[in-house]
Amino acid sequence: MNPTPAPAQTFRAIDVIRKKRDGGELSRCEIDSLVNAYTRDDIPDYQVSAWLMAVVLRGMTRAETAALTDAMLQSGEVLDLSSLAAKKVDKHSTGGVGDKTSLVLAPLAAAAGVAVPMISGRGLGHTGGTLDKLESIPGFDVNLSVAQFRRVLETCGCAMIGQTAEIAPADRKLYALRDVTGTVESPYLICASIMSKKLAEGIDALVLDVKTGSGAFMKDEKDAVFLAELMVETGERMGKQMVALITDMDQPLGLKIGNALEVVEVLEVLHGEGPEDLRRLCLELAGWMLHLGGVADSVAEGKRQSEKLLSSGTALDKFRQMVELQGGDQRAIDDPRRLPQAQHTMILSSSRDGYLAALECEQVGTACVILGGGARTKRRFGGSGSRNRAA
Amino acid sequence: MNPTPAPAQTFRAIDVIRKKRDGGELSRCEIDSLVNAYTRDDIPDYQVSAWLMAVVLRGMTRAETAALTDAMLQSGEVLDLSSLAAKKVDKHSTGGVGDKTSLVLAPLAAAAGVAVPMISGRGLGHTGGTLDKLESIPGFDVNLSVAQFRRVLETCGCAMIGQTAEIAPADRKLYALRDVTGTVESPYLICASIMSKKLAEGIDALVLDVKTGSGAFMKDEKDAVFLAELMVETGERMGKQMVALITDMDQPLGLKIGNALEVVEVLEVLHGEGPEDLRRLCLELAGWMLHLGGVADSVAEGKRQSEKLLSSGTALDKFRQMVELQGGDQRAIDDPRRLPQAQHTMILSSSRDGYLAALECEQVGTACVILGGGARTKRRFGGSGSRNRAA
Repeated sequence: MNPTPAPAQTFRAIDVIRKKRDGGELSRCEIDSLVNAYTRDDIPDYQVSAWLMAVVLRGMTRAETAALTDAMLQSGEVLDLSSLAAKKVDKHSTGGVGDKTSLVLAPLAAAAGVAVPMISGRGLGHTGGTLDKLESIPGFDVNLSVAQFRRVLETCGCAMIGQTAEIAPADRKLYALRDVTGTVESPYLICASIMSKKLAEGIDALVLDVKTGSGAFMKDEKDAVFLAELMVETGERMGKQMVALITDMDQPLGLKIGNALEVVEVLEVLHGEGPEDLRRLCLELAGWMLHLGGVADSVAEGKRQSEKLLSSGTALDKFRQMVELQGGDQRAIDDPRRLPQAQHTMILSSSRDGYLAALECEQVGTACVILGGGARTKRRFGGSGSRNRAA
Repeated sequence: MNPTPAPAQTFRAIDVIRKKRDGGELSRCEIDSLVNAYTRDDIPDYQVSAWLMAVVLRGMTRAETAALTDAMLQSGEVLDLSSLAAKKVDKHSTGGVGDKTSLVLAPLAAAAGVAVPMISGRGLGHTGGTLDKLESIPGFDVNLSVAQFRRVLETCGCAMIGQTAEIAPADRKLYALRDVTGTVESPYLICASIMSKKLAEGIDALVLDVKTGSGAFMKDEKDAVFLAELMVETGERMGKQMVALITDMDQPLGLKIGNALEVVEVLEVLHGEGPEDLRRLCLELAGWMLHLGGVADSVAEGKRQSEKLLSSGTALDKFRQMVELQGGDQRAIDDPRRLPQAQHTMILSSSRDGYLAALECEQVGTACVILGGGARTKRRFGGSGSRNRAA
């Protein structure tokens, strides 16, 4: 799909704003023109924010959503990983509390022969961020150049970095504006933002983990299903294999929350252990990644392979290799006491026996952010850059 | 009604944007804070344009509309004309083609003993502007200071000027932004814009002439009725006597269109002559102005008085007096050949006998603008200032 922007003199932002305001369907050309002009600073923020609000309240068709995604994708660099023989598959989560599956899945799928070029985000709101977790491993560098990223990927089959300045600059500008104009909460805009960044990775297939529940951005399962279907259809329209799992975020995933603590739990799963909910979700997602990656004939077969790769320590070896290649201290993998430790510990005990029936999942995530879990590093790109979770 | 803005530190524009986006009703305090902060340049255009689009698509309650009108009114100077014994009554038209009633009504109502402090606008889109018409009278000055305006009003009972920089500065800023963000077409925003400027005149009562038809901004009568009811209720909530007439704009009003030509037709009506449609509308509106102005017991009685004031030449004398007080050449009133004349004349004759069944009213207005009718003077206040018709 090649965007063919209209000549500058025929494009007027006001016409596109009015058309969307009145519920019309924008053409591919109109969307391309708007996104390109905004990326080049040719139209002002105040016109784009009016348009964004019209999109929030009027919605978009599937064709418009795909056109917007593609225009944002094409605004920057798209990695060409066709030189790698393996199929390229990534996983994206809409964000939750205690969700550390990415750190398990990248080495696990790579150990099975799938290439995983993973570009991740930082914590957003009450949710944790993959980059923040990785950076709790002493020395681990998430800011590789594209050339370094490609080298790590070719060497060990997976690599995990943050968004670079070259990827989807239109999304960075649009997200910064959405953040301050009350236009974040639109499935169409969320879809375009996520998919434009993920498709810039040059992947063949994408497994989506769409969270729902009190600790997710989509509290309502209906909204989660709608977003999932929208992203799947958008990816398919752009020629990618897509699957989405709707998963529970009514309680934190696993038993540990906080950057270094979550790395400890990742190592437990990579040792074939760890809490059952986390382990099960990892196997489910890995099953799909292996299946779409062409190394397992079915999802069930992918899950069986994944279980073996965990119990044999092969996935852990792959993780250790990636950590080393990205400058991290391998010794922290073999001795988690080398990871950052909390200065103070406080045990909250129940005054009587019983079962924990429910947990305020979002509050737990917020508590973690307040304790420093969300702010290990400054945001890049003017405060809006590398958040790509619910964007 | 006194706006009581919240302390700056407790007001966040994003909260107000989100609330309106989600269909909530904004409090008086929230609306005051937003309008005041924007007028002071404390919040950026891009947040206000997102809010405006949310208002266009979500609408406003009557209480919100009145609060917005009042906040915009209080953003600038409000004339205090309480020293004048007469009741102060104005008329506002939403704009049409050939609509020159203001030039008849101000002197007519003044001749009956009603004070008419009229602050008017220029042409907008395909419609003519009262200021443009007045300026075709050689020497006529529409840019009086407030002190001069008051003096003319006290001397002859009516005065006609353009908007000053002191009146409703919030409206000027908001209108300029609406113009470029596709947020002009909202009855709530149109109502607040018109009413904030009209109520700044320090009037007791207002007669609205809401146009509908092919030459009006409200093509659909339903929309015209909705806007009329909204403006009447908003004015009444603010303690003013209000009435609205829904009048036809499917064909131009009168037989002459163009600034100087329309002054000629005004003089015909002031001589007790002129085309019947224009004369009838003037008498209808004048009847209401005299009734609300307390000089006629009924509208019918107001119409009868007005007819006499036209046939006796008393209204014409009043017009002549106002023209003189505002620096205009009286001789042009007595000899309309002294008004600007078209350089070229072209007569378009029908090739056969018959009746003219319909006229593209908006196209006639646009033709007049192209011929120079809308551009006699440059717009003030950054291109958006004195347009107060459909604003």
